[in-house]
Amino acid sequence: MTEKIVVIGGVAAGPKAACHLKRLQPGWDITVVDQDNLISYGGCGIPYYVSGDVSDESELRSTSFHMVRDVPFFERAKGLKVLTSTRALAIDRQNKTVQVEDLESGKKIGLPYDQLMLATGAKPFVLPIAGVELDGVFTIANLHKAVEIKKRIAQGKVDKAVVIGGGAIGVEMAEALADLWGVKTTLVEFMPQLLPHLVDWQFAAMLKTHLQEKNVAVFTGEGATAILGDANGKVTAVQTPERTLEADLVIMAAGIRPRNELAKEAGLAVAPWGGIVVNQRLQTSDPDIYAAGDCIATTNLVTGRETHAPMGSLANRQGRIVGDNMAGINSLFKGVVGSFIMKAFDRCIAATGITYEAACAEGFDADYALTAPADRAHFFPGEAVAVFQLVFDRRTRQVLGMQGFGVMNDSISARIDAAAVMITQGATIEDFRDAEMAYAPPFSAAIDSINAAAFVADNLCADRLRKLDMDRFLAWMEDFSLEPDWVALDIRHPQEAGPFVEKFGQEKWVAVPYAEVRDRHGEVPGDKTIIILCDAGTRSYEVQIFLDHVGKKNTMVLSGGFNVVRRIGVDWYPE
Amino acid sequence: MTEKIVVIGGVAAGPKAACHLKRLQPGWDITVVDQDNLISYGGCGIPYYVSGDVSDESELRSTSFHMVRDVPFFERAKGLKVLTSTRALAIDRQNKTVQVEDLESGKKIGLPYDQLMLATGAKPFVLPIAGVELDGVFTIANLHKAVEIKKRIAQGKVDKAVVIGGGAIGVEMAEALADLWGVKTTLVEFMPQLLPHLVDWQFAAMLKTHLQEKNVAVFTGEGATAILGDANGKVTAVQTPERTLEADLVIMAAGIRPRNELAKEAGLAVAPWGGIVVNQRLQTSDPDIYAAGDCIATTNLVTGRETHAPMGSLANRQGRIVGDNMAGINSLFKGVVGSFIMKAFDRCIAATGITYEAACAEGFDADYALTAPADRAHFFPGEAVAVFQLVFDRRTRQVLGMQGFGVMNDSISARIDAAAVMITQGATIEDFRDAEMAYAPPFSAAIDSINAAAFVADNLCADRLRKLDMDRFLAWMEDFSLEPDWVALDIRHPQEAGPFVEKFGQEKWVAVPYAEVRDRHGEVPGDKTIIILCDAGTRSYEVQIFLDHVGKKNTMVLSGGFNVVRRIGVDWYPE
Repeated sequence: MTEKIVVIGGVAAGPKAACHLKRLQPGWDITVVDQDNLISYGGCGIPYYVSGDVSDESELRSTSFHMVRDVPFFERAKGLKVLTSTRALAIDRQNKTVQVEDLESGKKIGLPYDQLMLATGAKPFVLPIAGVELDGVFTIANLHKAVEIKKRIAQGKVDKAVVIGGGAIGVEMAEALADLWGVKTTLVEFMPQLLPHLVDWQFAAMLKTHLQEKNVAVFTGEGATAILGDANGKVTAVQTPERTLEADLVIMAAGIRPRNELAKEAGLAVAPWGGIVVNQRLQTSDPDIYAAGDCIATTNLVTGRETHAPMGSLANRQGRIVGDNMAGINSLFKGVVGSFIMKAFDRCIAATGITYEAACAEGFDADYALTAPADRAHFFPGEAVAVFQLVFDRRTRQVLGMQGFGVMNDSISARIDAAAVMITQGATIEDFRDAEMAYAPPFSAAIDSINAAAFVADNLCADRLRKLDMDRFLAWMEDFSLEPDWVALDIRHPQEAGPFVEKFGQEKWVAVPYAEVRDRHGEVPGDKTIIILCDAGTRSYEVQIFLDHVGKKNTMVLSGGFNVVRRIGVDWYPE
Repeated sequence: MTEKIVVIGGVAAGPKAACHLKRLQPGWDITVVDQDNLISYGGCGIPYYVSGDVSDESELRSTSFHMVRDVPFFERAKGLKVLTSTRALAIDRQNKTVQVEDLESGKKIGLPYDQLMLATGAKPFVLPIAGVELDGVFTIANLHKAVEIKKRIAQGKVDKAVVIGGGAIGVEMAEALADLWGVKTTLVEFMPQLLPHLVDWQFAAMLKTHLQEKNVAVFTGEGATAILGDANGKVTAVQTPERTLEADLVIMAAGIRPRNELAKEAGLAVAPWGGIVVNQRLQTSDPDIYAAGDCIATTNLVTGRETHAPMGSLANRQGRIVGDNMAGINSLFKGVVGSFIMKAFDRCIAATGITYEAACAEGFDADYALTAPADRAHFFPGEAVAVFQLVFDRRTRQVLGMQGFGVMNDSISARIDAAAVMITQGATIEDFRDAEMAYAPPFSAAIDSINAAAFVADNLCADRLRKLDMDRFLAWMEDFSLEPDWVALDIRHPQEAGPFVEKFGQEKWVAVPYAEVRDRHGEVPGDKTIIILCDAGTRSYEVQIFLDHVGKKNTMVLSGGFNVVRRIGVDWYPE
C-alpha cells in the first residue's frame, strides 16, 4: 500500500529524509513543505557567500554536479512533491493531517499523512534589547537575509559593522565582512571568551588574538545593551556597557533556538529549553511523527546529557535515519560527541567531546594535556605549530575531549576527526597512544600529535609530569606579588631566553639551555618554586624529570610553553 | 640497583626507547650502539632531502627545536652513552654481554647488559641480478647514500635515472628526481601495479597516470633483469624483458628485509621471512631482550596474521613501549592495521586496513564501495574530487580497509586516520555511517566522505545497489565483443554525454540526463544489460532504483563513475 509522507522543512534534514525514503520506497507519495521559496541550501555556506568566496547564492542550492535544487529538480529528478512558500499551521494527530497555508494565495489545505517528519530547523535568537528592528540589523536566518547583506556591502553601503555574538557563526561573519570587503568590523561577545562552551579559554584567546591581527576589533565579556538608530530608522551604533560602537550594519548571531511551535501545539514532548524530544529512531512522542535536524534534542555521548547539536552534517545523517525508519529499516541515531571545526582567516580551530571546563563541571576527575607540536615533520617545508588539548579523566583514563588550533589546512581536521570517532567509542588514553595515524613527512610528525598528546596525558596520570596551568602562569606574570616565591627556568636557546633575563632580572629568570641542564643544574635555585619554560613543554618535562632525580623537586612545567603564550598574546613579551 | 641497558641501533626505535627509559629511570646506565656515524635521523625524509625540499641532511637529524641529534646531544641533553661507528658482533645471552667492535680502531669489547634491545632496522633488498655493484647504483640504505645521490645530481652528473621498485620509496624517489631536478626518470615495477599489496589496482592506476602526467615513465609488470655498465664500471642502463632503459643513476627500491643476523645467531625466534618474533610487550623469545622497529614481526589486526610494518611512526611508538616495559611499566603493542600515506607530486594516496584483493584472498565475504565525492563543500573554493574505497565484509559488515586518492593536502589523511582508528576497534559499516566528522564547508561536505562511503556500503549489503566493477567495465570498453549485450545509459549533462554518443553510436550509448529519467525511461532498452554511468556513481544509484521500480531491473551502476575512469586514464575517451 502506498504510504503518504509529509515532511515539514526543506533545508537539510527534510530533503535528505525525503530523497532517501523515496529511494527505499519509490512508490510512496512524499510531500515536502517549506514556508520559504528557497530550499535545500547549505546554510553553513552563508558566510562564504557573504564574503564572496561563493559568488552566487544559487551555488549554495546546487548539487555537486551543478544542478540547482529547486522545486522542478526535486519533482523531476527525485520524484517528490514540494510545496514552497507554504507554511505548516497545525498538526491534527487524530486525523493525521497537517494544515498548511499557501503564503502567496492564502489558500489553506489539509495534507493527510501516514507518517510525518518535522524538520523545522532553528531560528536565530533575537536579543531582548532596543533597536533590533532597525534597518541594517540582520540575523542569519535564511538565504534571503544573506543576499540582502551582501547586496548592501556590494553597493558600498557598509563601512562599519558590528557582529553581536562570538560563536562560530559570529566569527565566520566577522571574517566575511572584514577579510574580502574590508569592512571595519567589531565583534562583541557577552561571555568572557569567544566560542563559549565550544573550546577552553586558551583556544578562545588564541582565536581572539588572530582576529585582532586581522583587524577585527573583539570585545569579550561585553554584551550589546541596545542598538541605536537615526531618525529614518537606520541603524547607527551598538551600545555596550563599555562603549558605543558605530555601525551601519549589525549582524545578530547570538545563538539559535529550535523551531518547536508546531510540535508544542500538537502536544509532542519538547525539552524545557526547546528541543523536540526524540528517541534513537528519531521518533517524537508520537511514533508516527519523526523529527530531525536543528529542531531536536539529542544526547551528548560523553556526558549522557540532553544537548542541542545544530549542524548541517548531523541533519543530513539524521535525515537518512528518519528515511530508514519510515521505510521499516531499523536505524538509530545514538547521539553526538559535538565535533566542531571552523576557519578563521588563516587559522583553523576545532574541537570534539567536551572542554576541560565542562569536564570539571560534570564532576569528572578532569585533567588536560596541552601540547604544541609541529603539524608535520619539522623538516618538511611549510610545517607549522598546532596547539592541541586532550581532556581526560585521571581515574578512568577515559578521553573526554580534544581541541586543536593551527594554520588553515586540513591537519587539525585529521586529528579532531580521529579523536571524535575514538571518543564516540569511549576511548582511553591508551587508545590515543595506540592510534595508528598514517605517517609520511608531508602529513605528520613521526610521533603524531594524537599520540604525543596521549604520551603527555600518560605522564600526567603517572605524576611524572607536574604542570603549571597557563592561566596561573599568566596571572603570576601580570603581577609578581601574587605568588612571589617562584623563579623561571628558561631552557630555550640563549638568544631566546636572553631578552627575558634582561627584562625580568636574573633573580626571577634563570636561563640554562636544555642541553646544559645536566652540567649546570647547580645554578637552579633549590629554595624556590621553579617554573620550567620552553616552547612546547616537551623539553621542560625532561628537565623536570632530571631535576627530580638530583633532588630539586619543587618544579612545574608550563603546559603548552611559549608556543601557546605567543599565540595568546601578552603585553609583557620583550620586544 | 642501577640496571645496565644496551640498545643496538640508533635510528628510530632505539633512541626513542633509550630516551624514554632514561626519563623513567634516570639512574640507569643506558648505552646505544650503532655501526653508522650518523644516527637518529628521519629516514622517511630522505626523498625530500634528495629532492631539495630539505636542504641539508642535518635537518633530518635535528629536533623540532633545531638541535642536531649527534653523540654530544644524546650524552649531554639525554644522559645516554652513545657508541657510533660501533658494530654489535654477537650477543652472549648466557653471560648477558654484547660483543661490539669499534669500526675505526678495530677494538672489540664486551658490553654487559641486564636488559637488551634490538633495534637493528631493515636493509634494502638487493635484486639477484647482474650489475648491482656498478658505480651509480644505489639503495636507500642510509643517510650517506642519500648524500651521495644528491651530490651527483647537484654536480650535473645525472641526466637519466631508473628507479627499480614501485613501492612507496620508489615512487617518492622518482618524484624527488623528476620534480625539482628535472632528471629524466623511469620507474619499473615487477608486479602488475604500483604500490603492490598497499592499494587496490584502481588506486595504483590513478597514481601511475599522475606520475606519467608528471613525466615519469612508468612500466609495471616489468622487472629489472640486469643492470648494464661501461668499461669503467659505471652504470649505463637497466635491462628489462621489454626494453633497455638508459641510466646514469639507478635507485634500487625493491623492498627491505629485517636485519636479524644478531637475533638469529643468538638463537632468538625469527619468522621464516625474517622478522624477529616478539610478544605484545615486544620481548623476543629471551625475556631480557626486546626488539622494535623495522626488524620485528608484528600482527595485522584485521587478518590476525604476522606482518612486517616498517614505519618510522611505529618504530617510535614501539620504542616508547620497550622503554615502559624495561622500566617495569606493563605496556603493550597490539599490532597494526597498516596505515599508509604518501605524497606523489600533486596527489596524495593513502590506505589503512587491507585491500579488496587481500580481503578476497583472506576468505572474507569481501565487497567494496568505490566513491568519488568532493573533498569539501562543493561550493567552497579549491574543492576537488577525492576517490575512496571502503572494503568490508558483507556478512559481518565489518570494515576491513579504506583507501583514498586525491589532491595533495591533508584531507585524505583526515579520512584515513579516522578510518584507521575505527578499523582498529573492529568497526562496522554502521560505525562509519555514524562517524562524527567535524563539519564546516572549508573542511568537508555536509555528508562527509566517510559517511558517504558507509551509505554506499549499506546500499550494497542491502542489494539496493548493484554495481559493475571498474575492471570489467574497462575490459568491455576495450573490446565490445567480450560482452556484446550491454548498453551504456549516460545520465550526465548532454554536453558531457554527447561526444560519447557520437563516438560509440546510439545503439551502444544512450544519453538521458539524470533529471529526465523519470519522464524518459521509455528510451532505455528493456532487453539489454544497462550500465548506468555518471561522474561519481550517486546519481546512477538513484536511477537504478527508479528503473527497478518501473520494471527495468537488468541494470548495473559503474562504481566510482567517470571521476575514476578519467583519473585512471583510458585511450577511448572522446577528444
